Amino acid sequence: LRYKLTIEYEGTGLVGWQKQPDLPNSAQQIIEEAIFKLTLEEVKIHASGRTDAGVHALRQVAHFDLKKEKTTHTIESGLNHFLRRSNCAVTNCEIVNDAFHSRFDAKSRHYQYKIINRRPHLTFNKKLAWQVYETLNVSKMQEAANFLIGTHDFSSFRDSECQAKTPIRTVEKIEIFKEGELIKINFSAKSFLHHQVRNMVGTLVLAGKEKIKPEEMKVILEAKDRTKSGPNAPSCGLYFVGVDY
Amino acid sequence: LRYKLTIEYEGTGLVGWQKQPDLPNSAQQIIEEAIFKLTLEEVKIHASGRTDAGVHALRQVAHFDLKKEKTTHTIESGLNHFLRRSNCAVTNCEIVNDAFHSRFDAKSRHYQYKIINRRPHLTFNKKLAWQVYETLNVSKMQEAANFLIGTHDFSSFRDSECQAKTPIRTVEKIEIFKEGELIKINFSAKSFLHHQVRNMVGTLVLAGKEKIKPEEMKVILEAKDRTKSGPNAPSCGLYFVGVDY
Repeated sequence: LRYKLTIEYEGTGLVGWQKQPDLPNSAQQIIEEAIFKLTLEEVKIHASGRTDAGVHALRQVAHFDLKKEKTTHTIESGLNHFLRRSNCAVTNCEIVNDAFHSRFDAKSRHYQYKIINRRPHLTFNKKLAWQVYETLNVSKMQEAANFLIGTHDFSSFRDSECQAKTPIRTVEKIEIFKEGELIKINFSAKSFLHHQVRNMVGTLVLAGKEKIKPEEMKVILEAKDRTKSGPNAPSCGLYFVGVDY
Repeated sequence: LRYKLTIEYEGTGLVGWQKQPDLPNSAQQIIEEAIFKLTLEEVKIHASGRTDAGVHALRQVAHFDLKKEKTTHTIESGLNHFLRRSNCAVTNCEIVNDAFHSRFDAKSRHYQYKIINRRPHLTFNKKLAWQVYETLNVSKMQEAANFLIGTHDFSSFRDSECQAKTPIRTVEKIEIFKEGELIKINFSAKSFLHHQVRNMVGTLVLAGKEKIKPEEMKVILEAKDRTKSGPNAPSCGLYFVGVDY
């Protein structure tokens, strides 16, 4: 039977989603080990997408197959028993059709980036947001963001290690909200290039600091050159929020 | 000159606001030491109210006097320089009239209590909210809370070590909001008895679990007997949100 999990993880201290040799602290390995402890089956779980070291997930989705049949309640509460001292938790479990694939069937992926915009050092949320000291102009950021919406060649926002076949992506939505000192940026797309969201955030922050004009975002995008865009925003501000199927 | 500070602290690991012999980790001592490092003056700071060990503050207010005159910018950024590795930060500084007193002039104090209501263990906010596993009926909680609003003898919600002269208090507001798995309870009063907010929360949670009916809150209140109310809710969910003058 194929099981679909919704997984939450606090990325601080994790090497990311993907299992890596000699680095036990990946979300994938932590969850695969919990599945083994619960079922005594060695399985591979497939996530909707990887996340980098330090990136958080509110609703990562992953699937795996079991030979034995177990109830979704047994899976969810049993896995959480073995995960209770980790930074990972299962927040939902469903039995799905054998044809379901968490990665290939994803129609839209959603990320949120959190910035805390203030002078005093943080006492809360130290590893859960990017602190920007200089006051940001949020409407300039939204103006700049609007140039990124749509189908474009995102080479200017692509990490040099990105393995995607094409740099063309369709950004469906970038919405920026300010709530007191907290700035939230919501991104949606079918898929993103490696570091695309964090590179876009780093460049939007340049617009917010008024170091570049909003319309320069178009020039940067059209340059198709990573050296033209802003710095890669820190991983601690990035949240994988969910997937639509 | 008299300075009024607005102070934020993450209470995890603090013994509370008040300075205690042999326990260096109080917000008061941490801030007094920072003032000494900055000004070389030994001062006593007076807060609007104490908070217990583990309780957080978003906008605690405190005042102190300095012999030397310094700008509010120097005080704020200078103190934050010495506080940068601590759980405390100064978020505002003003020069006030010598007659101002952070405690005696307070007209209204505001607390928020955060509950996370879900089965899976927490990966975020572990020490920043009270996790309640059993599903809470929030409208029953609000119904029960309404019996506490107004001027009453709050002996049933008063800690045995409370030193207040009278158990009579006027609760101006109790408002409960549910946002997904997060339940926020906002309390306002001129002042509260020791542990009053946390004892009220513990009893409201009994109403939310439907272990008591909302109208039993009135019976508990009228009993004037601490043994009739619910457990003291954990300190990690409590936030001192602000003071009106």
